[in-house]
Amino acid sequence: MTQSVLGLDYGTDSVRAIIVNAVDGSDIASHVAPYPRWKEGKYCDPGTNRFRQHPKDYVESLEAAVAGALKAAPEGTAKSVRGIAIDTTGSTPVAVDREGTPLALKKEFEENPNAMFVLWKDHTAVREADEINTLAKTWGGVDYTRFEGGVYSSEWFWAKLLHVMREDEKVRAAAFSWVEHCDWLPALLTGKTDPLTLKRSRCAAGHKAMWHESFGGLPSEEFLVKLDPLLKGLRANLFTETFTSDAAAGVLTEEWSRRLGIHAGIPVAVGAFDAHMGAVGGEIVPGSLVKVMGTSTCDMLIAPLTEMSGTLVRGICGQVDGSIVPGMLGMEAGQSAFGDVYAWFKNLLAWPLKLLAVKGYRDQAAELEDAIIPALSEEAAKIPAGESGIIALDWLNGRRTPDADQNLKGAVSGLTLGTDAPRLFRALVEATAFGSRRIAERFESEGAPIRDVIAIGGVAKKSPFVMQIVADVMNRTIKVAESEQTVALGAAMFAAVAAGLFPDILAAQKALGSGFTDGYQPNPANAAVYDSLYKEYLALGNFIEERTRAKSKNR
Amino acid sequence: MTQSVLGLDYGTDSVRAIIVNAVDGSDIASHVAPYPRWKEGKYCDPGTNRFRQHPKDYVESLEAAVAGALKAAPEGTAKSVRGIAIDTTGSTPVAVDREGTPLALKKEFEENPNAMFVLWKDHTAVREADEINTLAKTWGGVDYTRFEGGVYSSEWFWAKLLHVMREDEKVRAAAFSWVEHCDWLPALLTGKTDPLTLKRSRCAAGHKAMWHESFGGLPSEEFLVKLDPLLKGLRANLFTETFTSDAAAGVLTEEWSRRLGIHAGIPVAVGAFDAHMGAVGGEIVPGSLVKVMGTSTCDMLIAPLTEMSGTLVRGICGQVDGSIVPGMLGMEAGQSAFGDVYAWFKNLLAWPLKLLAVKGYRDQAAELEDAIIPALSEEAAKIPAGESGIIALDWLNGRRTPDADQNLKGAVSGLTLGTDAPRLFRALVEATAFGSRRIAERFESEGAPIRDVIAIGGVAKKSPFVMQIVADVMNRTIKVAESEQTVALGAAMFAAVAAGLFPDILAAQKALGSGFTDGYQPNPANAAVYDSLYKEYLALGNFIEERTRAKSKNR
Repeated sequence: MTQSVLGLDYGTDSVRAIIVNAVDGSDIASHVAPYPRWKEGKYCDPGTNRFRQHPKDYVESLEAAVAGALKAAPEGTAKSVRGIAIDTTGSTPVAVDREGTPLALKKEFEENPNAMFVLWKDHTAVREADEINTLAKTWGGVDYTRFEGGVYSSEWFWAKLLHVMREDEKVRAAAFSWVEHCDWLPALLTGKTDPLTLKRSRCAAGHKAMWHESFGGLPSEEFLVKLDPLLKGLRANLFTETFTSDAAAGVLTEEWSRRLGIHAGIPVAVGAFDAHMGAVGGEIVPGSLVKVMGTSTCDMLIAPLTEMSGTLVRGICGQVDGSIVPGMLGMEAGQSAFGDVYAWFKNLLAWPLKLLAVKGYRDQAAELEDAIIPALSEEAAKIPAGESGIIALDWLNGRRTPDADQNLKGAVSGLTLGTDAPRLFRALVEATAFGSRRIAERFESEGAPIRDVIAIGGVAKKSPFVMQIVADVMNRTIKVAESEQTVALGAAMFAAVAAGLFPDILAAQKALGSGFTDGYQPNPANAAVYDSLYKEYLALGNFIEERTRAKSKNR
Repeated sequence: MTQSVLGLDYGTDSVRAIIVNAVDGSDIASHVAPYPRWKEGKYCDPGTNRFRQHPKDYVESLEAAVAGALKAAPEGTAKSVRGIAIDTTGSTPVAVDREGTPLALKKEFEENPNAMFVLWKDHTAVREADEINTLAKTWGGVDYTRFEGGVYSSEWFWAKLLHVMREDEKVRAAAFSWVEHCDWLPALLTGKTDPLTLKRSRCAAGHKAMWHESFGGLPSEEFLVKLDPLLKGLRANLFTETFTSDAAAGVLTEEWSRRLGIHAGIPVAVGAFDAHMGAVGGEIVPGSLVKVMGTSTCDMLIAPLTEMSGTLVRGICGQVDGSIVPGMLGMEAGQSAFGDVYAWFKNLLAWPLKLLAVKGYRDQAAELEDAIIPALSEEAAKIPAGESGIIALDWLNGRRTPDADQNLKGAVSGLTLGTDAPRLFRALVEATAFGSRRIAERFESEGAPIRDVIAIGGVAKKSPFVMQIVADVMNRTIKVAESEQTVALGAAMFAAVAAGLFPDILAAQKALGSGFTDGYQPNPANAAVYDSLYKEYLALGNFIEERTRAKSKNR
């Protein structure tokens, strides 16, 4: 039996386990296990954007996913596993006790959402994020948001923990420290859960917790106490050092060896966020912009540290030494809404179907709803670029990059009585492509050149119509990763490096990478049309920004 | 039997005949007769916006409508009719021979669309309208478009006749003169069809044919020949004098007395356009803005000539002495799309229903489509003013008033992933209301004050949701005419004056007017919200205008 590695990819709804041949990267087996309590809608309140996940969900789904993958794999596969790596969503932190146990695993907190993981998309900490932003700009010391794009988000570590500590006295009293989802699982599997020593992920710390080497680690005690005296003393229970995922967090314990059916003593890599391991799975190299294209996008670029030394890329979502590939500067940007824009339009058009469902045609309504985006894509693909004169702005969920501003909103111009649904859909797709182009232009204008574009994620794999427009608008060739599970493959690569099977990530990528499909070539005629429409997109965006600024001043 | 009058209202699809008690204005009977050939789609090509109507359609439907009304009326009604007046769509001209017979009534032209009436919404003469506009601004003489808002439209008299004359040599050779629909019917019924002497409508001539007293009538021969040498000599076969509809075009001939079953010798009033007679039916008085609210709007205001002497209201669709009420300055403005904006949104949302129809649920799809606007209105009415933050621009069919510009297009800003169909619908309704407010503001800023607002037309009668928003946005009380057939009632008022039953239109309005329903009062809280949203509407409009201008310069 050949050597293999196990990659575990914790998404929003489920965990995927894949076992990969550690010599050539071929898939041996995989299995997806949903989070049981999450699936029932427990501990969440969409009305207030409260989204919490129970640590037991992560543990039970882990066992199910690994068991499922091993069951699907050839006999003897279990014995071949040489290393494990884990990626998760983030920032998804949890309050832990002195031993590093998430509070919800303790009897007295088992049903308390504040004692659970605060999922990335939980927006309960909007006020706390505002306070962090105001303080960072006004307190007179260093602006701790500067390596995170200059704007701290309610989706991130400090905002979330402060919100929970304010809201829940019992959790505050019982919380010795806080741990990210991607840090807790490696700690658990290796038995190294002590919050003072467990190995924290560089990518989580640098992109979401305002950690930076030049700050001496996390924001100073003075800053944190100014933010809220409640935070007094917490910094000392967190961390100063951080690690990249080529390092092992530890080795698999005897107990977890038994529970998973895998050899004890194999290395478990330091964890990281899904998009970042995905970029590695998508074979990111310096100058390759990797776009994770789904409901939103995450756009990642790496560069040698020496090349970017002293360069601060303005208005992206963070730049962190080693956050994507160890030894390289990892830069992250993104669009707050991408596939979500198309889903929004589908929901808009599906509005009358409610009336159909009410009349007893529920199945037909559901079937019709699913048919909308494919039918629109088919029709919209026939419309020549620029024919409709419609220009849309993709900021329906605010703007993440460049220069994050969640107050901005979407717009559409050029509407006529002849504007039909396929024309409007095409304009919305073009708008999301213009948003992609704007991110690439920002990277380049700030001194981070882009040589090629690699796409991964659902839209990249499923929508040739969208992908061709993105290629035309960006006027760049777009390669699409061959693998259907690029993120988990990236985790497997880290597992292989942490296990010592390859000297570094580049070597693991070369050996285990899935390569690319034919991808998309820009059509020169369309690219020329889009060059001119892009100017209109920028003009519309500037107008919307001005009005938004003027309105917020008047308040 | 009391005295009665007959009003004939020729719309786009049918003619309505009403017989009104000439003492108190109560309805005696009415009947609607469709145009038979038009109903079959004959002589039209929607793809090229060619819309023609056969003179036989007008004649046959006239007989059917009058017969239907008399049949529905009490015995003896026919004998009580003391006068007739006719309104029609316009500009809807036709080529006529030396006797004033529309060419399509002659054997050799009976199937030739160019020998038929060119319906108001026929857009085949776009090029000719452009040429007229360019020449009017550059030829060095008087700008003949100045009393028609400064922009000549492809929907109007000269553009249409020039287009037909260029396109059809046979029609050109056979055409002695041209006559508007509203002028031909009174001429026909009174036997006074000689093109040189038949009484031409002041409103048609002044609003659509660049006729003005100060020009000495129609544009000069020099101007017309410069426009196209083909026009040489035509001016002499048209007209210099024009008439208001309180005058009789003549009296009913023996032949038409037999065909209609009404006394010969009763006066038939000079014709006029439907919107203008509608304004009279809606009891327009100086300072009352009458809005005909349907697929588009026509906004009319009258003022004493002395009061407006020397005032040119910039950017409206025309100001003509006596075009609405004899002896008053008649001013016309309008929105190119009003109800059409709602219909557009309905069609957008109905797009997936095509897929349903294809699957065999054709009836359900049709039923659902009809339910969309009522359901949207119900939901949208529950949304507080200003809650959604969405601002829309109503220029989906260009902008008619102020400052006509058909190149302008619609827009929407403030979209978020939470924007649902009712919110977007409400914003579109608000946009059409903002457009109404802008027209009222233009009248006032140009020295034509508005005291109150009177609404007539389909939207005014059918959509309390829309009407309340218009009242809130305009911050004015809106009265709605009680009559369900205000335009035909206006024609009946003119019939009564032409018959000498009343000394003038004001007296006829007082006696025969239907009065008003309770109407709509502005909600002060909403009016304040809309005051601030209106500024955003103007800002969005200015941006769109600037970009449109910049783009057309770059071409």
